[in-house]
Amino acid sequence: MVEYNERFVIPQTQKAVVFETNGGELMYKDIPVPEPKPNEVLIHVLYSGVCHTDLHAWKGDWPLDTKLPLVGGHEGAGIVVKLGTEVKNLKIGDYAGIKWLNGSCLSCEYCEQSLEPNCPKADLSGYTHDGSFQQYATADAVQAAKIPKGTDLAEVAPILCAGVTVYKAIKSAGLKQGDWICISGGGGGLGSLAIQYAKAMGYRVLAVDGGPGKKELCERLGCEAYVDFTNSSNINDEIIKATDGGPHGVINVSVSQQAIASSVEYVRPCGSVVLVGLPAGAVCQSLVFSHVVKSIKIIGSYVGNRADTREAIDFFTRGLVKSPIKIVGLSELSHVYEEMESGKILGRYVVDTSK
Amino acid sequence: MVEYNERFVIPQTQKAVVFETNGGELMYKDIPVPEPKPNEVLIHVLYSGVCHTDLHAWKGDWPLDTKLPLVGGHEGAGIVVKLGTEVKNLKIGDYAGIKWLNGSCLSCEYCEQSLEPNCPKADLSGYTHDGSFQQYATADAVQAAKIPKGTDLAEVAPILCAGVTVYKAIKSAGLKQGDWICISGGGGGLGSLAIQYAKAMGYRVLAVDGGPGKKELCERLGCEAYVDFTNSSNINDEIIKATDGGPHGVINVSVSQQAIASSVEYVRPCGSVVLVGLPAGAVCQSLVFSHVVKSIKIIGSYVGNRADTREAIDFFTRGLVKSPIKIVGLSELSHVYEEMESGKILGRYVVDTSK
Amino acid sequence: MVEYNERFVIPQTQKAVVFETNGGELMYKDIPVPEPKPNEVLIHVLYSGVCHTDLHAWKGDWPLDTKLPLVGGHEGAGIVVKLGTEVKNLKIGDYAGIKWLNGSCLSCEYCEQSLEPNCPKADLSGYTHDGSFQQYATADAVQAAKIPKGTDLAEVAPILCAGVTVYKAIKSAGLKQGDWICISGGGGGLGSLAIQYAKAMGYRVLAVDGGPGKKELCERLGCEAYVDFTNSSNINDEIIKATDGGPHGVINVSVSQQAIASSVEYVRPCGSVVLVGLPAGAVCQSLVFSHVVKSIKIIGSYVGNRADTREAIDFFTRGLVKSPIKIVGLSELSHVYEEMESGKILGRYVVDTSK
Amino acid sequence: MVEYNERFVIPQTQKAVVFETNGGELMYKDIPVPEPKPNEVLIHVLYSGVCHTDLHAWKGDWPLDTKLPLVGGHEGAGIVVKLGTEVKNLKIGDYAGIKWLNGSCLSCEYCEQSLEPNCPKADLSGYTHDGSFQQYATADAVQAAKIPKGTDLAEVAPILCAGVTVYKAIKSAGLKQGDWICISGGGGGLGSLAIQYAKAMGYRVLAVDGGPGKKELCERLGCEAYVDFTNSSNINDEIIKATDGGPHGVINVSVSQQAIASSVEYVRPCGSVVLVGLPAGAVCQSLVFSHVVKSIKIIGSYVGNRADTREAIDFFTRGLVKSPIKIVGLSELSHVYEEMESGKILGRYVVDTSK
Repeated sequence: MVEYNERFVIPQTQKAVVFETNGGELMYKDIPVPEPKPNEVLIHVLYSGVCHTDLHAWKGDWPLDTKLPLVGGHEGAGIVVKLGTEVKNLKIGDYAGIKWLNGSCLSCEYCEQSLEPNCPKADLSGYTHDGSFQQYATADAVQAAKIPKGTDLAEVAPILCAGVTVYKAIKSAGLKQGDWICISGGGGGLGSLAIQYAKAMGYRVLAVDGGPGKKELCERLGCEAYVDFTNSSNINDEIIKATDGGPHGVINVSVSQQAIASSVEYVRPCGSVVLVGLPAGAVCQSLVFSHVVKSIKIIGSYVGNRADTREAIDFFTRGLVKSPIKIVGLSELSHVYEEMESGKILGRYVVDTSK
Repeated sequence: MVEYNERFVIPQTQKAVVFETNGGELMYKDIPVPEPKPNEVLIHVLYSGVCHTDLHAWKGDWPLDTKLPLVGGHEGAGIVVKLGTEVKNLKIGDYAGIKWLNGSCLSCEYCEQSLEPNCPKADLSGYTHDGSFQQYATADAVQAAKIPKGTDLAEVAPILCAGVTVYKAIKSAGLKQGDWICISGGGGGLGSLAIQYAKAMGYRVLAVDGGPGKKELCERLGCEAYVDFTNSSNINDEIIKATDGGPHGVINVSVSQQAIASSVEYVRPCGSVVLVGLPAGAVCQSLVFSHVVKSIKIIGSYVGNRADTREAIDFFTRGLVKSPIKIVGLSELSHVYEEMESGKILGRYVVDTSK
Repeated sequence: MVEYNERFVIPQTQKAVVFETNGGELMYKDIPVPEPKPNEVLIHVLYSGVCHTDLHAWKGDWPLDTKLPLVGGHEGAGIVVKLGTEVKNLKIGDYAGIKWLNGSCLSCEYCEQSLEPNCPKADLSGYTHDGSFQQYATADAVQAAKIPKGTDLAEVAPILCAGVTVYKAIKSAGLKQGDWICISGGGGGLGSLAIQYAKAMGYRVLAVDGGPGKKELCERLGCEAYVDFTNSSNINDEIIKATDGGPHGVINVSVSQQAIASSVEYVRPCGSVVLVGLPAGAVCQSLVFSHVVKSIKIIGSYVGNRADTREAIDFFTRGLVKSPIKIVGLSELSHVYEEMESGKILGRYVVDTSK
Repeated sequence: MVEYNERFVIPQTQKAVVFETNGGELMYKDIPVPEPKPNEVLIHVLYSGVCHTDLHAWKGDWPLDTKLPLVGGHEGAGIVVKLGTEVKNLKIGDYAGIKWLNGSCLSCEYCEQSLEPNCPKADLSGYTHDGSFQQYATADAVQAAKIPKGTDLAEVAPILCAGVTVYKAIKSAGLKQGDWICISGGGGGLGSLAIQYAKAMGYRVLAVDGGPGKKELCERLGCEAYVDFTNSSNINDEIIKATDGGPHGVINVSVSQQAIASSVEYVRPCGSVVLVGLPAGAVCQSLVFSHVVKSIKIIGSYVGNRADTREAIDFFTRGLVKSPIKIVGLSELSHVYEEMESGKILGRYVVDTSK
């Protein structure tokens, strides 16, 4: 692994993947190394995870405009190599991470209450601010993730968005240790992390997914019960039976509209259904009568704040959560996007910015 | 007002309104006075509120079977005139109330956590247990509402269900004092109570309703802002503007599906939408994308527990909440149902069981 | 193990340990088998844990009068052999437990909120109600602990008070998973259980105790860090360093006044110090200035409610918490008291009522 | 009132009260107007409240060193007249306030969770940063209080510390609306504000204080019950009786050690005792036995964060809390200190920096 030292020299130009129009060519090319503003640091990004959000940013199919041209990526792990003039909380040589929320106003009612992901002026890495698909990226020093020295920077990369997001979603459910939590879509990239976080947090985990290899994977990660939607005669009944009354919480990492509707039915009375994925256009539905009589909550959970990020990284660095990744060169990013679009992807891709 | 005293004699028969089939004739007739079981008290019901739920019980249009023949009613206020052999927490002459939840198992995971309205063995007054549309009704002593001596029994009657229900819904929103709360349907029976509770609890109240007299009513009850859905060009925008970013909580006492859908849009980021009415068949919908990005909660709130009941009554007896009622004789109940069905009703009817 | 079956006959008399005056003779003798009241069950007690509270009850050194003559004991595990006329939530043959809180009024403001241990009319097993140091004891059916069939009744006995108490204390600290929790007195009977519960609940555990064997014991039970008060030059500094700023919560199972005072100093800012033992006469002290500037909480945690009991038993039956016990005959109870008084006891004694 | 306009010119020097040694001369003199750093604004302070903390800062009797020489004061209200280069959340002409917490690191575990008053690098106005006893003071733009245009700057000044502090203390108690709250020391400067906040937040207020005029004052501010410690035969009994079982929360604005000890005794079971004043040397004591059996919490509440500040100001600007002040010239500050030391002060002094 590259280590920062005294002899390290920041170059003038660097490799990056850039696109100029939504859905346009993903160009792997040389661009200038950016200069940090007074409140920013420059991070030498060594690895970056690739997330479905990056695909949405490129395609531009969300109701939020991206910056153009844009360098995507918001799961970047690297080393601080330059400090803006006002930065006091990081120093050169620190490990740091680029995450979805690059910066916020620090002063609105949301920022004041540590709800900075909801800041109306939120600045988003790989969306409204050039992200981690480049070798050197600027990041707001207050929001940049702090990564302990010695951490594997390739493996920690997906924790910076995928890990934090599922960790925050699990917290949002507001459960007690010993409660049952259902991870709907437990065998996917987010789901695999969610099972591990939930188990490490003292919950009993039931995973729902489909297809032959998923059961084995989910059980290895720690789930106590598994329901296969491809061969269940009645998913709701099976889940309610396996959890002796329904799970106390459901984390919908699956973005299937039908799976979400089902989760509202099988959740335990007084339980929590958490929505966390961001499908373009999907709707969440519940019958008002049973929503009320069962006294359930349907909770939207967005990305984590700075504390959630620190905590999610801590579970990872303590070895309680593993991050299974496939590393490819940054130059191959467009192929990764193709695989993601075709739905063939298994696990999480991480790009090595040096290749 | 009738007062219990030493010379009081419990009769053998009494007046009641009974129906033998769902939707069948509402018979005002003489029936035997029931005998309390060991855990029950016999309450001499003087007044009973009439609630939309009573209409549903009679029509049988909810996915829950009623007892038949049935004496409806679950907002009964009266005097304890007989104790079951095991009753220790009430004594003869106490004021007590019959409420929706007549009894629960006291032993399941819901009862153990004071969530007894969610007990799978919940026994419901005027639904699975003969209710308050009779002069003498039995009630589980643990669940019977405790009403302080000197309380106006006619006025407190609607507090026992309508009052407790909106009070609990407001609590469910989980707001801070000073936050904005929107009462959607603020000018109706539940809404009028909700505005008063919300104000007494230190929230800023915006009411939504329609038609000429409602604005004046809502403002008199304490709302700071009012939006008239009959003449607003854009309800969502108007509400967001009046509350400087959207209300932190919305209480949907209106059961209009469209009003509920709108509330999910105008609620403030990180805010709570509470569902509390029980329309047969209505659906609650949200766009997953904005549900997540705005990080909102949609919360089902059912009736209150014993503590909620005590607290809701306390706000009433301290004079912070007024209960505007129209008193008619029990013998006129079928006319009240007709008015309710035609949607013509304003305020809350209370029946006097002596007439 | 004795199993209830059709041929089982309840005897007229039974063995019990009784005392007639506080501090008086502990008589192992025959007494009549009691008759359950309508709300009670008769439990054939097979095993009972012995707790320090039993010693206080016998000596009468707490500011609460005991019933006299008294059968002590409040950690009794056995089988329901008879039902009171009003009991609906248990059936003959069920496993059930006798715990400290035998019964409560179900109707006061504390009972209404599931705070029944704080009920002013609380009835206490082995204190104001004959307890589990007899072969057949009556217990309020609502409060009796539900124990799953197949559970080891000897090992579960100490969970009914010791286990529930430390579990509730840990919950009272209000921590997040991943937070550091300090178990002050981690090597004792309560402490051993507390370490295991804390670990199963996802906390990082530091234990404080003294003497050679304790470190090894605490580490085997799951603590990550250990501080030995017998050889530390500065306990506070050592604890703060090991937890990178102080534990977020401290559970004082040690009742040493000095250990408690120290915990107020080493707890992390914004953290919680929980008091849980009941030393007669000890005082908890804090400097107001640092209490405020550090924004800490000092929380008294009494025994658990029904839900806490169910949850604590569930952690045990799922194998996440082991209960190390020494079994002796009920007839030897006075010797156990002698050992407890002399402070020589290690682990938890359980008496077998058949011997 | 001075209004900022286009023609406003910032002078080179200004009037201030400065001391060079703890307890040394309070010099009213000309000093240079400071220059804001990139993250700071320059506030033209028109009015500043005078707080007991200012006296401690001057005397240096707390276990925290002050900057020297020092300009004290941390309740300054004024107008932003200059922006640091990086400031985006305020603009020239805005009303803004100087409060106790001038700045924090924004990046530690406390800042990340909106617990910035507990930041180890907290910078304190009038203590480690020159404060509001001058006409022009610098303030961290993120932490500076936002004050709505049109607010009376003299009256809002004490809200910036005294108001926020009692508001936060009341929130810390974690009560439900309708609960009883006791303000111990209700007739003093902090107490007067606490009564009003508590009432506006929907609590029932009992005030404890002594002497003839206090009862009348407390009742006018909204307390329902009053206990005079100078003529009560048993304060604890009287308070418990007046609140039907003890107040659910107690706010100790009185710093008397005896009053604090008493509050631990009369608080309701499961209730909260809040410590909020900062007496040098005082100790808080509780009997462990009753602390546990009553299950109470003793909570240290320090100053509020940015959200608490915004909320406390909002209660004031909505007219729910009045701030009774006496205005004198800044040049008379040393006389104010003398009065405070002698304990003769009634209400809150505010200094007008123009005199």
